[in-house]
Amino acid sequence: MSRSFRMPARVRFSDTDAAGIMHFSAFFTYLEDAEHALLRSLGLSVCLPQPEGWSLSWPRVAADCRFSGSLRFEQAFDVELTVARLGTKSVTYRGEFLLDERSIARGEVTAVCCRIETGKPPVSLEIPAAFREALAPYVNEADG
Amino acid sequence: MSRSFRMPARVRFSDTDAAGIMHFSAFFTYLEDAEHALLRSLGLSVCLPQPEGWSLSWPRVAADCRFSGSLRFEQAFDVELTVARLGTKSVTYRGEFLLDERSIARGEVTAVCCRIETGKPPVSLEIPAAFREALAPYVNEADG
Amino acid sequence: MSRSFRMPARVRFSDTDAAGIMHFSAFFTYLEDAEHALLRSLGLSVCLPQPEGWSLSWPRVAADCRFSGSLRFEQAFDVELTVARLGTKSVTYRGEFLLDERSIARGEVTAVCCRIETGKPPVSLEIPAAFREALAPYVNEADG
Amino acid sequence: MSRSFRMPARVRFSDTDAAGIMHFSAFFTYLEDAEHALLRSLGLSVCLPQPEGWSLSWPRVAADCRFSGSLRFEQAFDVELTVARLGTKSVTYRGEFLLDERSIARGEVTAVCCRIETGKPPVSLEIPAAFREALAPYVNEADG
Repeated sequence: MSRSFRMPARVRFSDTDAAGIMHFSAFFTYLEDAEHALLRSLGLSVCLPQPEGWSLSWPRVAADCRFSGSLRFEQAFDVELTVARLGTKSVTYRGEFLLDERSIARGEVTAVCCRIETGKPPVSLEIPAAFREALAPYVNEADG
Repeated sequence: MSRSFRMPARVRFSDTDAAGIMHFSAFFTYLEDAEHALLRSLGLSVCLPQPEGWSLSWPRVAADCRFSGSLRFEQAFDVELTVARLGTKSVTYRGEFLLDERSIARGEVTAVCCRIETGKPPVSLEIPAAFREALAPYVNEADG
Repeated sequence: MSRSFRMPARVRFSDTDAAGIMHFSAFFTYLEDAEHALLRSLGLSVCLPQPEGWSLSWPRVAADCRFSGSLRFEQAFDVELTVARLGTKSVTYRGEFLLDERSIARGEVTAVCCRIETGKPPVSLEIPAAFREALAPYVNEADG
Repeated sequence: MSRSFRMPARVRFSDTDAAGIMHFSAFFTYLEDAEHALLRSLGLSVCLPQPEGWSLSWPRVAADCRFSGSLRFEQAFDVELTVARLGTKSVTYRGEFLLDERSIARGEVTAVCCRIETGKPPVSLEIPAAFREALAPYVNEADG
């Protein structure tokens, strides 16, 4: 049985658009927030400055979302996050957007573990053991 | 030969994030802006109020983007838009993000033609002839 | 002694900009969020649909913020909200942004009580008793 | 006679909120965009990396806006920018939001000329001659 991580959230007025619902781009920022909250809950961070001056961070290479419902101002919802794929250098997170426990959107974002240094292009790295071990229980076995 | 629509843009400071690049969610709003600009250039709009009180609009059902590069503050870029699929009730737009004519991201968004009425769920409709005829030249034949 | 309302928050990655800090415009959305959270805590909402078809809502007529510090990604902060002025038809909320109990920004937003009807301009109204009585304890006596 | 700088813009769908109008926080980002566009038009930039490794940039210390009207999706508007005050170390920009040449909002933002170095707090500097001379013609004499 794989674990999942739940992030509760509420639709902000600034998230809504003239159609009266949460703008589709906001789903991507909540998906990212859930990823960052999961890492924090594991004592990690999506951006870890290293003593040598560079940072370990996770640029996104792909993101997608499918919408089957919508969210309105002030509605409380949850993002239920699992790991759809834990690769050698990349992680694909999957987030289910739940309104009253009913899925209204499902998104995925793939992030690559990189060495980030000012003025240089990112260099991909093998995922460090601390991240791999912390994320392993969240791998969704159905997709694993 | 299919046509494409080019929307020039420039990275706003508010689009950037602490990694120094345009935040990945901003690609989705520029993709949507290009769609809306294409429709305007055709004398149409993504939201057309009807005399009977409802509106013809296009809720999104899917969006995805793959990133192969990044954009920095003040960089000028283009979104080159084509129609990847023109269905009976939905359109899939494809946008190539070009920096100095080099692709750094490619996104797609699928929108469904709907009757939107206050207080009622959206009802999908066949795409009206005015939209179908105007969009047909932009269908990307390689994917058509 | 006037009451204050505290909303805890955390800097989202999408809030940050290329200077590595929370973008100044995000302070305004958190200030608004605190106002909406205060109203919710009082059993009210910033947008109340009425049985007759119109809505009671609060368009903004002024907003300002002074910044004496900055916020970085993942930092936890509080918005401490009081009412700087409770007029006949308008309310001015004041929010202090606290990082480790030290103020790093102070903002104010003035909202006018209005009847909002589709297709008509907003009409200002006297603040209903339910709002006036609920907000009165939050009036900051120093500015009364 | 002082000069002014005009930046044309159009309300994006993502700028709108559930009240059907441009969200008040978006006025602040357009005000900032106009400032950056003015500097670009003068051959300058709001962020100038220096050969010695630090950057000359302009953190905001105050921002305010008063709203007398609203903007809807797809409306074209202009931000007419002048300099309300050119101090020794700071500049206050004033932007008038014009819809069909009628003002619907007026905002001001004060930015301080600073030396920005990674891992250090910003240090305020006297405004360099290149900026002072370029901005001088935009000082609004009525407020000068």
